[in-house]
Amino acid sequence: MSNSSSLKKVLVTGGLGYIGSHVVVSLLLTGKYLPIVIDNCHNAYPEAIKRCAEIARDEMGADAPQPIFHQVDLRDSSAVDEVFAKYAGEGGIWAVVHLAALKAVGESGEIPLQYYKVNVGGSIALLEAMEKYNCSNFVFSSSATVYGTPKTVPIPESSPLQAESAYGRTKQMVEVILQDVCRASADKGDKAVHAVSVRYFNPAGAHPSGKLGEEPMGKPGNLLPLLAQIAVGRQKSDLKVFGDDYPTPDGTCVRDYLHVMDLAKGHVLALDAIASKSIFASCTSAEGMYRAFNLGKGKGMSVLNMIAAMKKASGFEYKYEIVGRRLGDVPDLTADPTLAEKELGFVAEKNLDEMCRDLWNFQTKNGDGYSKQ
Amino acid sequence: MSNSSSLKKVLVTGGLGYIGSHVVVSLLLTGKYLPIVIDNCHNAYPEAIKRCAEIARDEMGADAPQPIFHQVDLRDSSAVDEVFAKYAGEGGIWAVVHLAALKAVGESGEIPLQYYKVNVGGSIALLEAMEKYNCSNFVFSSSATVYGTPKTVPIPESSPLQAESAYGRTKQMVEVILQDVCRASADKGDKAVHAVSVRYFNPAGAHPSGKLGEEPMGKPGNLLPLLAQIAVGRQKSDLKVFGDDYPTPDGTCVRDYLHVMDLAKGHVLALDAIASKSIFASCTSAEGMYRAFNLGKGKGMSVLNMIAAMKKASGFEYKYEIVGRRLGDVPDLTADPTLAEKELGFVAEKNLDEMCRDLWNFQTKNGDGYSKQ
Ligand SMILES: NC(=O)c1ccc[n+]([C@@H]2O[C@H](COP(=O)([O-])OP(=O)(O)OC[C@H]3O[C@@H](n4cnc5c(N)ncnc54)[C@H](O)[C@@H]3O)[C@@H](O)[C@H]2O)c1
Ligand SMILES: NC(=O)c1ccc[n+]([C@@H]2O[C@H](COP(=O)([O-])OP(=O)(O)OC[C@H]3O[C@@H](n4cnc5c(N)ncnc54)[C@H](O)[C@@H]3O)[C@@H](O)[C@H]2O)c1
Repeated sequence: MSNSSSLKKVLVTGGLGYIGSHVVVSLLLTGKYLPIVIDNCHNAYPEAIKRCAEIARDEMGADAPQPIFHQVDLRDSSAVDEVFAKYAGEGGIWAVVHLAALKAVGESGEIPLQYYKVNVGGSIALLEAMEKYNCSNFVFSSSATVYGTPKTVPIPESSPLQAESAYGRTKQMVEVILQDVCRASADKGDKAVHAVSVRYFNPAGAHPSGKLGEEPMGKPGNLLPLLAQIAVGRQKSDLKVFGDDYPTPDGTCVRDYLHVMDLAKGHVLALDAIASKSIFASCTSAEGMYRAFNLGKGKGMSVLNMIAAMKKASGFEYKYEIVGRRLGDVPDLTADPTLAEKELGFVAEKNLDEMCRDLWNFQTKNGDGYSKQ
Repeated sequence: MSNSSSLKKVLVTGGLGYIGSHVVVSLLLTGKYLPIVIDNCHNAYPEAIKRCAEIARDEMGADAPQPIFHQVDLRDSSAVDEVFAKYAGEGGIWAVVHLAALKAVGESGEIPLQYYKVNVGGSIALLEAMEKYNCSNFVFSSSATVYGTPKTVPIPESSPLQAESAYGRTKQMVEVILQDVCRASADKGDKAVHAVSVRYFNPAGAHPSGKLGEEPMGKPGNLLPLLAQIAVGRQKSDLKVFGDDYPTPDGTCVRDYLHVMDLAKGHVLALDAIASKSIFASCTSAEGMYRAFNLGKGKGMSVLNMIAAMKKASGFEYKYEIVGRRLGDVPDLTADPTLAEKELGFVAEKNLDEMCRDLWNFQTKNGDGYSKQ
């Protein structure tokens, strides 16, 4: 039987969300890490945590470790503090995986202050609580959007950060803050803050069981969930393709899709690398114990590729209209994934058909969303 | 008799501080603006507000408007909220001049999180309260340090922002946040957020009355207060000049010193320009009603120039030692002041001798600092 008290406690902020819930499952399945989730349910449902627990039991048996959930808003720093205090007597929280954020690029241009408050202010509050409770290991959900319009594709981590939306700027600022925080404590040995920013490319798909997936509130902002909801009849089919005159093979925008379970694995590998400190060997104390990695497949897929793949998975005949380019869309965002492979051992193995199959499986099993069950 | 209730209420954060207190005096003397100060006394004393009131009475008579002081920490967003609420019934706060910040470059490398919390988090809290209480006019204390090592000197406002310290990055981030906030509300007409960042070069000197000046806690971080305290015997004279091999006329670093009363006047001009909206005529709604201006004289002074000028003012024979360059010092930070002159009508008129004379006057009249009186 697994003894939860021997597991390393990992605080997962935003752990009810799309990526967070898959990270929670992946942490449970390692048998090494115990996820403690905080989330304010802004864009997610507590049901997700039950699904995570269920998957762990399905795969590990009745004694599987169980995730813990606290409904906490990151903007409430005393509530965040209390969570750290609660576990302080039990060995403490060993690391934080910080996924909670507002994430809609368009909305961030309309209500930027809320984005800065939640994404930047929330990260500062979290880092303060970590400092207070001697927790020094941090994995941060960054995004390919920090590269803005990159000069070279595939994009290496060394590309300049030049986000082009308020959302992207919140991610870029948190990376900058993290670097300063790591630098300031670099000479503190084991107590130095060790942080990793993981820059996600385009997460897609769902847990193969169909029990977890992307469950956005309102109309999906991302292409794949939209395609899935159109096929299942949950969204009216007014599918628009924004621009077919980009300098890409078929003229539509190219993105680097990776399976959400591969992405979740990236977080486990980042925690493992923090535990072994392997990835910090090259860091000088002037830099601090800080690293940033792309998490992508390194394989670009166009909008039309994605529509074709979802048609294959769902059987649905999509009708789409080609309209003008959308402001702020970058032609090609494909990762150079070599650094994460070399240093974290990360490879996004699952292919496009698996992403679409698992997404479709989730969509059909959860008709109107698992929120409603 | 001036009727305070007809004055425009201006919230001055950090209004007990060095620059803030001179801004408060300058606002009082306009007879148009009523300063409401919030400050947590982290680096200042409530005595400053009495001195401001005294100067206003000296110059305007017994009926001079009186500044109001609330001891509030910007990190306490409900306390900030309460201040706005308090005046909501009386026409509300018309504008905010936001000076409160932590400001020591060296310290910001040691405790960056506190700098981000106070400077960035504090600005977000303030902007949130403004939004809630329909206050849409903002003047922000930025700094020449946002230019990092500039490519061209004198430095125009169009130079890229590339701060080289955590302190500088906090200022740069707030400028970025402000721009996004202005952009998001640009189409709201009068209710659009109108913001001005004023990038200070090197403020120096004191109010000519000797009643207000720079009163740093602990050893002064800036050259002029240090020179004054050495001359008056308050600091042991271990004066170090960091580097004499810079590519400047005498090899020591060059800075653009301006009199603190000139700088204070710059804030009044910025508020006047916000009131008339003159400076926003060129702003498109894609940019938002946001402008940034250098406040400097446009005249570089070397470390050795400053030592000579303070010797002239105080009669003290400084002994100094030339030591190695200090990490992060930029050879020359001189403003291109033409934009502020053209658009705000701002000219820093007082010369170096006046800065040193007023500083010396303040120092000799306030021996151990007005805090102690
Ligand atoms: N999905 C993507 O395409 C993508 C790409 C790059 C980066 N990211 C980042 O990955 C992270 C997770 O994204 P996701 O796609 O799973 O989004 P999501 O919205 O499903 O998850 C975010 C979670 O954070 C929670 N949250 C929001 N504000 C909070 C607050 N103030 N306090 C506590 N919890 C709060 C939400 O309720 C939600 O459960 C985010 O940081 C996002 O910016 C996502
Ligand atoms: N003095 C300079 O050389 C210089 C140059 C460029 C920019 N600036 C900026 O000008 C502004 C004023 O600087 P100054 O030289 O007068 O410094 P100062 O320290 O004298 O004034 C700052 C004031 O803010 C207050 N304060 C700090 N933290 C606070 C908090 N959490 N809540 C409320 N009040 C708080 C302090 O008590 C102090 O009175 C700062 O924003 C600074 O970064 C100063």
